[in-house]
Amino acid sequence: MDENEALELLGHLLPAAPPGEVWWGDDAAVVAVPGEGRQLLLALDTVVAGVDADLTLSRLSDLGWKAMAVNLSDIAAMGGTPAHALVSVAGLGASSLPELYEGLLEASTRYGCPVVGGDLSSGEQLVVSVAVTGWSEGHPVLRSGASPDDIIWVTSPLGAAAAGLRCLRERAAMDCTGAGDGQLSREQEALVSAHARPVPALAEGSVAKNVGATAMIDVSDGLATDLSRLARSSGVGFELAEVPVAPGATLLEALGGGDDYALVFTLPPSVVPAPAFEAVGLRPPMLLGACVADTGRHHLRGAPLEVAGWEHTL
Amino acid sequence: MDENEALELLGHLLPAAPPGEVWWGDDAAVVAVPGEGRQLLLALDTVVAGVDADLTLSRLSDLGWKAMAVNLSDIAAMGGTPAHALVSVAGLGASSLPELYEGLLEASTRYGCPVVGGDLSSGEQLVVSVAVTGWSEGHPVLRSGASPDDIIWVTSPLGAAAAGLRCLRERAAMDCTGAGDGQLSREQEALVSAHARPVPALAEGSVAKNVGATAMIDVSDGLATDLSRLARSSGVGFELAEVPVAPGATLLEALGGGDDYALVFTLPPSVVPAPAFEAVGLRPPMLLGACVADTGRHHLRGAPLEVAGWEHTL
Repeated sequence: MDENEALELLGHLLPAAPPGEVWWGDDAAVVAVPGEGRQLLLALDTVVAGVDADLTLSRLSDLGWKAMAVNLSDIAAMGGTPAHALVSVAGLGASSLPELYEGLLEASTRYGCPVVGGDLSSGEQLVVSVAVTGWSEGHPVLRSGASPDDIIWVTSPLGAAAAGLRCLRERAAMDCTGAGDGQLSREQEALVSAHARPVPALAEGSVAKNVGATAMIDVSDGLATDLSRLARSSGVGFELAEVPVAPGATLLEALGGGDDYALVFTLPPSVVPAPAFEAVGLRPPMLLGACVADTGRHHLRGAPLEVAGWEHTL
Repeated sequence: MDENEALELLGHLLPAAPPGEVWWGDDAAVVAVPGEGRQLLLALDTVVAGVDADLTLSRLSDLGWKAMAVNLSDIAAMGGTPAHALVSVAGLGASSLPELYEGLLEASTRYGCPVVGGDLSSGEQLVVSVAVTGWSEGHPVLRSGASPDDIIWVTSPLGAAAAGLRCLRERAAMDCTGAGDGQLSREQEALVSAHARPVPALAEGSVAKNVGATAMIDVSDGLATDLSRLARSSGVGFELAEVPVAPGATLLEALGGGDDYALVFTLPPSVVPAPAFEAVGLRPPMLLGACVADTGRHHLRGAPLEVAGWEHTL
């Protein structure tokens, strides 16, 4: 399928470019450039079927949503505002493309990040790459700015996505054996939704930046892994007091389960973030712990966090 | 392999960010935004091993070069200047990553488009996606601006890449049967190089824009296909008088063979482009023919060009 056939197939789904811009249909997409004082953010993340998403457990439209959402989450983790996206799809038959794009464009529309170009390729396995641009007013929030004694916050409880995947696997196993009725409770449905349709914390990232977050990262590979990345980039250690666990999830899922896309950020101890979050209708962030000067210290309630082990034990 | 392991592996190959910018190692790359009067160009193209590149015939470093070059060619075809690139790699073992990146970064350095971020994934098949940004001073050259009577130009002879692939296939067949010594002539080596290391025509695209090109496209899928795209976008037909064929290539390869990455552009009949090209040391463009008002007319020397058939006959 070439680009023109794809455009015919997707034409009714794709947004139209505003005057003076060119989206799709040319060699490159053209977008207007705002004035100075801003910084451009660029991110590219790939979702591979069978690796990052199990199509026996989730829908193609959910994979599309996720491919877009994980990139938007990268912009959120800088405190930025998404601008435009490009999408590359390899290894998907033309007849399935609309379902994939349905989820992609739903996330794209919801978070104001129009898909302005991309390409399609043949292949043996479905691979979806999404590139996004975003803007940061002034300096974005990096992973590397945390200081010893900064307080560590998280924008939501953790572990829901991993618990949702567990629910889907358990239901699939029950379906195979004929045990149970395959129905999910309301709590399980919320977990499954967290897995299938992760929400990029764009508003939260923006408020965190505005209250002066010193460092920020999104929880894509699990709190233990991602907080360790932030700590390493910043040259600090950490001492966690609490880990908020999503209802129905386990502590192990909260620490080691990925795909939550909550934001973890640090603030000087003098800053109380809740009012700024509540002022715009957001849930106040939850306290995790504090940064410490000892870079080798990665502790939860005084005991070492065995970082390397989390992914393998799930 | 996670990002940190990749950075360790690639650290000596990757360029360092200038002060005030962040490349790699954070959730998104941060680059400075130039002032107004410019337009941002965005492109994303994917190269799939076994589809867009045959690793039994070409090296992994050549695949890397190509993945970067095809995106730079998209920027060239707008008359733009490349700025930054993001690279996503799926389905490649860590031990092979440096070889892929060697070619990627060679093209990236040669054409001043630093790789500022990206990701890595598991997968069954090697899929390389590259996203590039570029800038256009004023309006870029689109596919859609050609008028009837505009003259059609091309920046170099065509068919070399397809002929180079043919040489490689013939040599591989000879190696299998034991016939011949497997040596390539100097002409054949030039064709193979055109296939393995396509050159994005960035300088040519910039000059074409400056002399007032009304429409432009790069020849990625073959002259017949790509010129038809330009004509359809512009609402014109075309009458070709000449098709410059690269030494050692056939007319069929020049018309239907892809991957040449020459630029085809249109100019009003009053504009003579050669002096502007020669002034900066570039080969003057070659005349292909003229646009006509009849959109159904896709002719070469008075006879219809059977567009659909070219790719299948190669």
